[in-house]
Amino acid sequence: MDSTTSIAIASIITAGLTTAVGCMMPAIGEGKAVSTALSSIAQQPDAAPTITRTLFVGLAMIESTAIYCFVVAMILLFANPFWNHVIAN
Amino acid sequence: MDSTTSIAIASIITAGLTTAVGCMMPAIGEGKAVSTALSSIAQQPDAAPTITRTLFVGLAMIESTAIYCFVVAMILLFANPFWNHVIAN
Amino acid sequence: MDSTTSIAIASIITAGLTTAVGCMMPAIGEGKAVSTALSSIAQQPDAAPTITRTLFVGLAMIESTAIYCFVVAMILLFANPFWNHVIAN
Amino acid sequence: MDSTTSIAIASIITAGLTTAVGCMMPAIGEGKAVSTALSSIAQQPDAAPTITRTLFVGLAMIESTAIYCFVVAMILLFANPFWNHVIAN
Amino acid sequence: MDSTTSIAIASIITAGLTTAVGCMMPAIGEGKAVSTALSSIAQQPDAAPTITRTLFVGLAMIESTAIYCFVVAMILLFANPFWNHVIAN
Amino acid sequence: MDSTTSIAIASIITAGLTTAVGCMMPAIGEGKAVSTALSSIAQQPDAAPTITRTLFVGLAMIESTAIYCFVVAMILLFANPFWNHVIAN
Amino acid sequence: MDSTTSIAIASIITAGLTTAVGCMMPAIGEGKAVSTALSSIAQQPDAAPTITRTLFVGLAMIESTAIYCFVVAMILLFANPFWNHVIAN
Amino acid sequence: MDSTTSIAIASIITAGLTTAVGCMMPAIGEGKAVSTALSSIAQQPDAAPTITRTLFVGLAMIESTAIYCFVVAMILLFANPFWNHVIAN
Amino acid sequence: MDSTTSIAIASIITAGLTTAVGCMMPAIGEGKAVSTALSSIAQQPDAAPTITRTLFVGLAMIESTAIYCFVVAMILLFANPFWNHVIAN
Amino acid sequence: MDSTTSIAIASIITAGLTTAVGCMMPAIGEGKAVSTALSSIAQQPDAAPTITRTLFVGLAMIESTAIYCFVVAMILLFANPFWNHVIAN
Amino acid sequence: MDSTTSIAIASIITAGLTTAVGCMMPAIGEGKAVSTALSSIAQQPDAAPTITRTLFVGLAMIESTAIYCFVVAMILLFANPFWNHVIAN
Amino acid sequence: MDSTTSIAIASIITAGLTTAVGCMMPAIGEGKAVSTALSSIAQQPDAAPTITRTLFVGLAMIESTAIYCFVVAMILLFANPFWNHVIAN
Amino acid sequence: MDSTTSIAIASIITAGLTTAVGCMMPAIGEGKAVSTALSSIAQQPDAAPTITRTLFVGLAMIESTAIYCFVVAMILLFANPFWNHVIAN
Amino acid sequence: MDSTTSIAIASIITAGLTTAVGCMMPAIGEGKAVSTALSSIAQQPDAAPTITRTLFVGLAMIESTAIYCFVVAMILLFANPFWNHVIAN
Repeated sequence: MDSTTSIAIASIITAGLTTAVGCMMPAIGEGKAVSTALSSIAQQPDAAPTITRTLFVGLAMIESTAIYCFVVAMILLFANPFWNHVIAN
Repeated sequence: MDSTTSIAIASIITAGLTTAVGCMMPAIGEGKAVSTALSSIAQQPDAAPTITRTLFVGLAMIESTAIYCFVVAMILLFANPFWNHVIAN
Repeated sequence: MDSTTSIAIASIITAGLTTAVGCMMPAIGEGKAVSTALSSIAQQPDAAPTITRTLFVGLAMIESTAIYCFVVAMILLFANPFWNHVIAN
Repeated sequence: MDSTTSIAIASIITAGLTTAVGCMMPAIGEGKAVSTALSSIAQQPDAAPTITRTLFVGLAMIESTAIYCFVVAMILLFANPFWNHVIAN
Repeated sequence: MDSTTSIAIASIITAGLTTAVGCMMPAIGEGKAVSTALSSIAQQPDAAPTITRTLFVGLAMIESTAIYCFVVAMILLFANPFWNHVIAN
Repeated sequence: MDSTTSIAIASIITAGLTTAVGCMMPAIGEGKAVSTALSSIAQQPDAAPTITRTLFVGLAMIESTAIYCFVVAMILLFANPFWNHVIAN
Repeated sequence: MDSTTSIAIASIITAGLTTAVGCMMPAIGEGKAVSTALSSIAQQPDAAPTITRTLFVGLAMIESTAIYCFVVAMILLFANPFWNHVIAN
Repeated sequence: MDSTTSIAIASIITAGLTTAVGCMMPAIGEGKAVSTALSSIAQQPDAAPTITRTLFVGLAMIESTAIYCFVVAMILLFANPFWNHVIAN
Repeated sequence: MDSTTSIAIASIITAGLTTAVGCMMPAIGEGKAVSTALSSIAQQPDAAPTITRTLFVGLAMIESTAIYCFVVAMILLFANPFWNHVIAN
Repeated sequence: MDSTTSIAIASIITAGLTTAVGCMMPAIGEGKAVSTALSSIAQQPDAAPTITRTLFVGLAMIESTAIYCFVVAMILLFANPFWNHVIAN
Repeated sequence: MDSTTSIAIASIITAGLTTAVGCMMPAIGEGKAVSTALSSIAQQPDAAPTITRTLFVGLAMIESTAIYCFVVAMILLFANPFWNHVIAN
Repeated sequence: MDSTTSIAIASIITAGLTTAVGCMMPAIGEGKAVSTALSSIAQQPDAAPTITRTLFVGLAMIESTAIYCFVVAMILLFANPFWNHVIAN
Repeated sequence: MDSTTSIAIASIITAGLTTAVGCMMPAIGEGKAVSTALSSIAQQPDAAPTITRTLFVGLAMIESTAIYCFVVAMILLFANPFWNHVIAN
Repeated sequence: MDSTTSIAIASIITAGLTTAVGCMMPAIGEGKAVSTALSSIAQQPDAAPTITRTLFVGLAMIESTAIYCFVVAMILLFANPFWNHVIAN
């Protein structure tokens, strides 16, 4: 395979795997957080506003790790510096 | 294999695996969240509206990580920048 | 192997694995949700309508991740853009 | 190996593995659901009709993911579009 | 290896693995269901008829996933469409 | 290797692995079922006849998945259709 | 390697692995069953005869899966149909 | 492959995997921390300010390990000393 | 490698792995059984004779699976039918 | 590949993997520590100063293992003695 | 490699791995047994003689599986029948 | 590759992996120790000095295993006896 | 590679892995035993002498499995019969 | 690669992996022991001297397995008998 093709293939596979692997654990972490939020609301309905506010900040924090992976995948697909270098030459 | 074929194969395999792997953990996370919602409703029926509202926001958040993977798979199948480059040349 | 054959093989294997792997965790997640629904109904029979309604919405949400995988597998088998490209040439 | 043989082998292996892997987790999920149903009936015999009705809907939902896999395996064995293409040529 | 041999080998290995892998989890699921049935009967002997009836329906459902795998293995061994194709030519 | 040898080797390895892998989980499932039966009898000695009867039906059901695997292994060793085909030619 | 040697090697490796892998889980299952039997006897000494009788039936059932594997290993070592075929020719 | 291409490919794959693998566990750790925070607030609403303050410091600490990985990935993509060396020569 | 050497190597490796892998789970199972026996004796000292008698029967049963593996390993080292065949020729 | 390239590739891959793998467990450990701190504060608000002080010392200790990995990765990228040796020659 | 060397290497690697793998689980099993013995003595100091006697019998039983592996390793190193055969020729 | 390069590559990869793998479990162990310390302080504030003193000794002991790995990595990078031998020749 | 070198390499790798793998589980087992000893002393300080005596016997028993591995590693490094054979010739 | 280089590489990789793998479980075991010590002190402050004394003996015992690995790694790096043999020739 020539340079262009092999870099393209590496980018495709890495972009896919990065998104897939990187989205696994945030989903578990968010599931755990949401699930505890629900049982906490059921246990202490009066604290619902505080709980949901803390929940959303926490979810954003957890989601951020999934977004890092999505960003890296998008960079590899659409702003890949190595690809730009080889197709420029 | 020539360039076109090998990029096509890499895209096919990556699109499939990204969807498959990326959908595993959101399903678990959502299962956990739904399951706690149900036991919370059973425990505190009066808080059902708050619980279901928080549940749906949480499910949407968790589903988003599965959607990232689905989006990457769709991009690889139907808007693949590397494929467009090689079939344009 | 020529282009056509190797793309066909990649599509067959990926379609199968995507469905198989992608259906594993939704089944677990749904099992967990159904199971909690049943114990919640046993614990609070009066809340059964709310519980089953929430359960079905949740199951649909979880099933959606399995359906993403099934859709990708069907696209790879019957509407594969790369296959269409190579058999058109 | 020629085209026909290699597509046949890929189809055989994928059909088998898809069924095998795809049937693992539904069996666990159904085991969990049935098991909770039984303990719920033991705990609240009066709710047995509601519990069994919800159980059967849930089992059908979980079984559906196993059926997706079985369907894909059957398509690969008996209605494989790529096989039809190569033996037609 | 020629076509006939390689298809035969793929069928043998796949038939064996499909049965072996596909029978693992149903055994666990059934073990779980039977085990809960027994402890439920011990806890509520009066509900034994309902419990055993629900148990047998559930076991049949779980066994069905093992049977899918056994069916696919039997098809691969004794009604393999690809094998029939190559020995017919 | 010639056809005969390679089919023989594939059959030997598959027969062994099918039995070995396929017997793992039924043993666990039966262990779980027997173990709950024993603790249920200890807890409710009066229900012992019902419990042991249900236990034996359950064990037979679980054992059936191990027997599927043993049957496939025996078919591969002593009634292998592909082996019969190659030694007939 | 010639036919005889490669079939011998496959038989040796498969016989060993079948016994080793196939004996793992029965040991766990029996350990679980024995262990529950002991705690059940300690909890309800009067039910000891019923418990030990059920235990021995259960152990025999679990041991049977280990024996399937041992039988297959012995067949492969001392009554191997493929080996007999190649050394007869 | 020449030097430039192989370094580019190694950088692409490593950048993706580093982000993906490195984001898995922080997401779990944060999910655990957020989840305990929510149940602690529900249990002791008066301590909410102390709890949320400690939570945010802890989340920042956990997030830092994900950021190390993201930083290394960014360095590999946009400030890779080895790439700069080979394209300078 | 010639026939003799390769059969010798396969026998050595298989004998070792069979013993090693096959002794793992019996050790765990026996550890579990002994451990429950000890806590049962502590809980009900009067039942010690019944418990130890049942324990020793159980340990013998579990040990038997380890002995199957040891026997196969010894057969492979000192009474290997395939080795005898090749050194006889 | 020549010396320079292969050392560069090894350094890139090792730097990435070291950071990624080495950051996994500290994140879990810190998540566990933070999570227990939060539930301890909720349980004993008066001990909050002692708890947070001990927490921060502990987090620093755990973070140190992640930092060892980050330091090794940075050394490999920017102060690699082997790279310096080969580009000096 | 000639016969002597390759048998020597296989023996070395197998002897090491057999000891290493075979000693893993007995250590866990003994740890579990010792640990329960200690908590049983703490709970019922009067039964200490019975407990320690049963413990030592149990430990000997568990240790025996580790000794099987050590024996096989020693046989492979110092009384290897295959090695004796090749150096005798 | 020549001697120098291959020893350099082995040293780079081993140094990275040793640090990464060797830092995983100490982080978990320290997280566990810190976490129990915090809940112990919350439960028995009067024993805080004894607890923190014992904690720091324990953390130092656990950290020592991570430091062994870091030391080996540093030796491999900066005081590697094999590298010194080959570049001296 | 010649005989001497390949036996040396096999001995080095096996000695290292045997020690490393063989020391994993004894450490866990001893950790479990020590940990139960400590909580047993805390629960029943009067039984401390019996507990520590039983603990040390148990630790010696568990340590013995680690020592088997260490002994095998030392034999491979310093009293390797195969190495002695090849350097004697 | 010549003898010297390949033995050097094997020694480097084995030394690193032995230390890394061998330090994993002692860290977990020590974490468990320290953690139980802390909760035991919190539960029974009067027994603190006995507990810490037993803890330190136990930690030394667990640490010894990590030290075996470190010793083997150091022997491989600085007193390797095979390396000495090849550089002496």
